[in-house]
Amino acid sequence: MEKYCFGVDVGGTTIKIGFFTGDGDLLNKWEIPTRKEDNGKNIIPDIAKSIKFKITERGLTEEDIAGIGIGTPGPVEKNGVVHKAVNLGWGEFNLEEKLTAQTGIRSKAGNDATVAALGEAWKGGAKGYTDIVLVTLGTGVGGGIIIGGKILYGSKGAGGEIGHIHLYNDEEEECGCGNKGCFEQYGSATGLVRLAHKVIARTEEDSILRGGKISSRVIFNAAKQEDKVACEIIDEYGRYLAHGFAVISAVIDPQVFVIGGGVSNAGQILLDNIEKYYKGYAFHANRDVEFRLAKLGNDAGIYGAVKLILDEG
Amino acid sequence: MEKYCFGVDVGGTTIKIGFFTGDGDLLNKWEIPTRKEDNGKNIIPDIAKSIKFKITERGLTEEDIAGIGIGTPGPVEKNGVVHKAVNLGWGEFNLEEKLTAQTGIRSKAGNDATVAALGEAWKGGAKGYTDIVLVTLGTGVGGGIIIGGKILYGSKGAGGEIGHIHLYNDEEEECGCGNKGCFEQYGSATGLVRLAHKVIARTEEDSILRGGKISSRVIFNAAKQEDKVACEIIDEYGRYLAHGFAVISAVIDPQVFVIGGGVSNAGQILLDNIEKYYKGYAFHANRDVEFRLAKLGNDAGIYGAVKLILDEG
Repeated sequence: MEKYCFGVDVGGTTIKIGFFTGDGDLLNKWEIPTRKEDNGKNIIPDIAKSIKFKITERGLTEEDIAGIGIGTPGPVEKNGVVHKAVNLGWGEFNLEEKLTAQTGIRSKAGNDATVAALGEAWKGGAKGYTDIVLVTLGTGVGGGIIIGGKILYGSKGAGGEIGHIHLYNDEEEECGCGNKGCFEQYGSATGLVRLAHKVIARTEEDSILRGGKISSRVIFNAAKQEDKVACEIIDEYGRYLAHGFAVISAVIDPQVFVIGGGVSNAGQILLDNIEKYYKGYAFHANRDVEFRLAKLGNDAGIYGAVKLILDEG
Repeated sequence: MEKYCFGVDVGGTTIKIGFFTGDGDLLNKWEIPTRKEDNGKNIIPDIAKSIKFKITERGLTEEDIAGIGIGTPGPVEKNGVVHKAVNLGWGEFNLEEKLTAQTGIRSKAGNDATVAALGEAWKGGAKGYTDIVLVTLGTGVGGGIIIGGKILYGSKGAGGEIGHIHLYNDEEEECGCGNKGCFEQYGSATGLVRLAHKVIARTEEDSILRGGKISSRVIFNAAKQEDKVACEIIDEYGRYLAHGFAVISAVIDPQVFVIGGGVSNAGQILLDNIEKYYKGYAFHANRDVEFRLAKLGNDAGIYGAVKLILDEG
């Protein structure tokens, strides 16, 4: 009889759960709130309860489920141990063992951005590629690296933490991680807004950005209307991203960068501004890398989580 | 009957060849000149001839040889295709197929620095580790990355080309690769000497370095004698290396950096100056990485080349 899979994506506000066929087709998906109180002690029981409810609702048993894949913030080691997922309040424990103990079902865990990368490689913007960097440009800069079709976990579960590449020595503000000059400070949506305020302050040029509330969407929309100041902002932003991506290329030589997260909604204009500067920073062997937009949006995590299970066979 | 292996390390001046047991014990080693004339067309035939001579000398036949592993400068793809090994004059061709055609023996190729990393991981400074970055600090900065015990080739054979990580935007001189601001311009022996000249010119402090011929060895020896200017030079040099290494850590999260090449002869004082700055640049999950000195010296390449064969079984 055919087996089914669950894909789980733990976010800071909601937990997304997908119910999939054994071939990776999404049958349905839903969300439950992320209860972060009491150091997030309800998170795993809430997931287990929701999964068990779905199994019963479908008239199935645990034996019909091939596994549960789960993506979660912060470092996740290859053996399933998570530590310091700061915004969930969790300490250090084996997430796979805990989830299996509470569901009776085999589990496999990974870092959320890395798992999303696996999803994009499987069914999204990097379909057909094996050596991939997924970059999510949102509040921060997240990253996931796939090499030869497999997740690069890193020795402490911190593979692909590209938001914390040290780029510049002259930074005066602190990154969320406590360092100064991280890629995330320049490449995130937050960094883009910060840059916009700086550019607006240093020029006298008229702009539709003056006075209003500034977000990455507002900036890119203004640039699409050829607002000079907005164009200058996204040009400089593209240069920062190009620098960060060239650094990553020199280390792992990927085939493709897949760009997701809120900023990626800007579309082709974002890729154009990255590509304009990328070749100037990149080593010659890395210049032909492709830049693509992520395709799965918020579903990348649940798809990638299921792929974790399917890859284990 | 026991099988034997050959390990070959192609350098710009000489080709090192090692004859090994199937357990990876080095029985003997020798060198032949690298004949670069005529676009390096004699290099493969010279290697084949030298190997066949050794087989005959030992009273063996091709059937007694498990394989030939070979490390060579420039990008090497996973399928054995080399391209643009500039200092050998080679074009693009399949090195493994060519060597096998001329010897009748299975061959496996890799980039020289990457193969050396495999050697250090197997029998040298990173013995027992699985996630390793080998960094060679010589005329340039070479790199080899091992993840989960396997070489990270990269999609175009340029995985671990860490010497060409773009570090600084304010560089005015060109790197050998044509870009400006590459890690190699700061982290190589050449970069160290360049830095020394700058520091000597900007200070009036007396120093044993003034007037004499400056090399990385001279600088480190002066620092060991507590020459103030030399100490300032290697302090700043350590900061550059720390920056580059922290960037690499944020991408792949290794267990250990193994430092080889001419500059590494300086020993512990080099590691001390790197570690002094590394934590300040590194993401918190990467701060506990280890720094070690390479142990196999010029033999790392032939050991790693043999490991390429043994890993293929």
